[in-house]
Amino acid sequence: MGFIKTPVKGTNDFLPAQMRIRQKVLEIIRANYASYGFSEIETPTMEHIENLTSNQGGENEKLIFKIMKRGAELERAIAGGKDFADSGLRYDLTLPLSRFYAANADNLTAPFKALQIGSVYRADRPQKGRFRQFMQCDIDILGDPSFISEIELISATSNTLLDIFSHCGINEFTVHINDRRILAAMAAYSGIDADKTESVFITLDKMDKIGKDGVKNELIADGFSEASVEKYLSLFAGESDINAFADTLSEFLPAGVFENLSAIMKIVRGEIPASVKIVFDPTLVRGMGYYTGTIFEITIDNYNFSIAGGGRYDEMIGKFSGQKVPACGFSIGFERIITILSDLETDFDKDSKKKIAFLIENGVSEEKISEVFKKAVLLRKDGNTVSVQPMKKNAKHQIDKLMAEGFGEVNKIYKD
Amino acid sequence: MGFIKTPVKGTNDFLPAQMRIRQKVLEIIRANYASYGFSEIETPTMEHIENLTSNQGGENEKLIFKIMKRGAELERAIAGGKDFADSGLRYDLTLPLSRFYAANADNLTAPFKALQIGSVYRADRPQKGRFRQFMQCDIDILGDPSFISEIELISATSNTLLDIFSHCGINEFTVHINDRRILAAMAAYSGIDADKTESVFITLDKMDKIGKDGVKNELIADGFSEASVEKYLSLFAGESDINAFADTLSEFLPAGVFENLSAIMKIVRGEIPASVKIVFDPTLVRGMGYYTGTIFEITIDNYNFSIAGGGRYDEMIGKFSGQKVPACGFSIGFERIITILSDLETDFDKDSKKKIAFLIENGVSEEKISEVFKKAVLLRKDGNTVSVQPMKKNAKHQIDKLMAEGFGEVNKIYKD
Repeated sequence: MGFIKTPVKGTNDFLPAQMRIRQKVLEIIRANYASYGFSEIETPTMEHIENLTSNQGGENEKLIFKIMKRGAELERAIAGGKDFADSGLRYDLTLPLSRFYAANADNLTAPFKALQIGSVYRADRPQKGRFRQFMQCDIDILGDPSFISEIELISATSNTLLDIFSHCGINEFTVHINDRRILAAMAAYSGIDADKTESVFITLDKMDKIGKDGVKNELIADGFSEASVEKYLSLFAGESDINAFADTLSEFLPAGVFENLSAIMKIVRGEIPASVKIVFDPTLVRGMGYYTGTIFEITIDNYNFSIAGGGRYDEMIGKFSGQKVPACGFSIGFERIITILSDLETDFDKDSKKKIAFLIENGVSEEKISEVFKKAVLLRKDGNTVSVQPMKKNAKHQIDKLMAEGFGEVNKIYKD
Repeated sequence: MGFIKTPVKGTNDFLPAQMRIRQKVLEIIRANYASYGFSEIETPTMEHIENLTSNQGGENEKLIFKIMKRGAELERAIAGGKDFADSGLRYDLTLPLSRFYAANADNLTAPFKALQIGSVYRADRPQKGRFRQFMQCDIDILGDPSFISEIELISATSNTLLDIFSHCGINEFTVHINDRRILAAMAAYSGIDADKTESVFITLDKMDKIGKDGVKNELIADGFSEASVEKYLSLFAGESDINAFADTLSEFLPAGVFENLSAIMKIVRGEIPASVKIVFDPTLVRGMGYYTGTIFEITIDNYNFSIAGGGRYDEMIGKFSGQKVPACGFSIGFERIITILSDLETDFDKDSKKKIAFLIENGVSEEKISEVFKKAVLLRKDGNTVSVQPMKKNAKHQIDKLMAEGFGEVNKIYKD
């Protein structure tokens, strides 16, 4: 037929049962973040190609879905050997947020607490749990240099996760927290050049995949001296006691970094439920190059991966607006959470509404059909879900499927 | 700086106040359609280029945002002079729905009542109220050849619109209804060839823009005889009495078409509120070529444009699956509704929650900050929205903006 039934590679069709979980989780996210005073905004799917390829997105810039110029412009591009693309699909929500803020700051509260929910796109190699189109849910606070942002973000996200997972009886999470400046100090302490630290971060970020030996080998292969690498890795030998780290690294750090981290941990500890731990984690890196200070992740205990991550990025918005704007954000790993929930028993599908179907046999009189529709109106007014449908020849199969969709009452209307 | 602050041409950033209206309208749409037993599904933003250019989309196929192949595939395409694109952004939700149904029918109820909400993309010339990315909200019933679908769709959409516009005191709408087969019979009655009717529809569709004279001139310019055109237009001379039309056109129509339309109108009339009129409208065309039977639109009285439209398209899904599946859909003109609501006074922004802010002066002790955050937790538990923020130097300006965002209580926390 020439038509292709499957979705584009790496993307998904979502069926009703999947959508019910996704929508419930989104409702919980919206309600929780709204209660912290975050305002939802929306940015377009497409972004200017110039913005997408401005070196802010790290590895993601290699994964852009590019959109072709059209008409005469495309012809000129082809004839002139110029770029064929004038825009592309956004690979995250942070870049569009920075553009949004640079364009609209005058009309926003200061600080501005933003919630953004939307799909992002990466031409990644598709694999289990990794898609080419996936949903991101980000909160960001723009215009606040103080740790109040970190506390609001961690508190709001912890409570949102607790609320989501309360529907399947899970309430134990760990907030991992670190600071990019501590990572840099760890490198300096080990005698690694300041301009090589980004490369060290990228390797350290793989610790949970390749282990300490893997990190060691990769750093040595990258040309770092064995002495430096040994000294560096010795930092991760014992307990991650924040005071011991502070002592060891004191001369390599700007004043106040550990104090800042300690204050955040202490205040957050005082307000989030006890089933959520908060720990200093010197192995936490976070992949994105744009982070400048505090970084954090939340892992779900007994599962070995993070379900939310974020940090402070005080330089990025200035690159758009020319004016420095402190910023801090936290992103929920929406698709990962949906994957976990889909494998567990939840009460998301338990609808409080009664679902009633009327099946109308072929040949029923207009008058009788009209009565059914009028009855349906009244039942809906009383808060029920009501579906009026033609009766299929195989009514049993039809009813089975309706019951699987939660229709507890199915009325058959026969012709006289 | 090389960065571009504005959104891509024809697309929009939505600020918090705009998003509050959009989200409330979406909530109303979801709740109403759910009460009729429609199940929400989601399809990807991208579709295979083969599907998008399969001649199902009419004029929209000229407006596709095409996505470039990547890597070695792109190089081969350039070297071989082949198409550079392997996918594109969807221009509507009906094509993806057809693909979705063809792929997933076995796992869906029969008939399947779908709700789809999502952005679509058209490289149109941007103009007032017409965007390159815009939201569509479609309901469709697949697998039902009977008029029960039309009744459920019209009833559900009418009640949804009534619910939305109740927030600004509007409750008068008109449902316009017609049938593509009546349009074809009108052409046959006038002596116009069956294979030319599509072109006549396209011209008739412009009636409200170019008037009866404009339609006449365009049809004559298209080569139709003046006699045919006169006879054709005479049909629109008097009242649109459905029985008079039925008599005039009886020999050009398959049996049952007018009876079907009358039954739909009568049953719908019996169940929707009286402030919604339902009228037979022989000038109603609907642009899309895929409609095969009933077509309908809803206009808001005193505004001269439609805010919802749809119809029956029994042939389209078969073009995907090879198996004929009757289908009928109704699409809400989401962006038009938002435009209307934005110009009117609504109660959408009246939040039932109390909004409380705490502004913390620079230098306040950790202990005192911790107390504020603990207090915020309790206030949120009591159902309030609470935002903790640093106090800006210009606190008055900060408070004014917070009050504009609905924060009725602002507490200032000073250092001791």
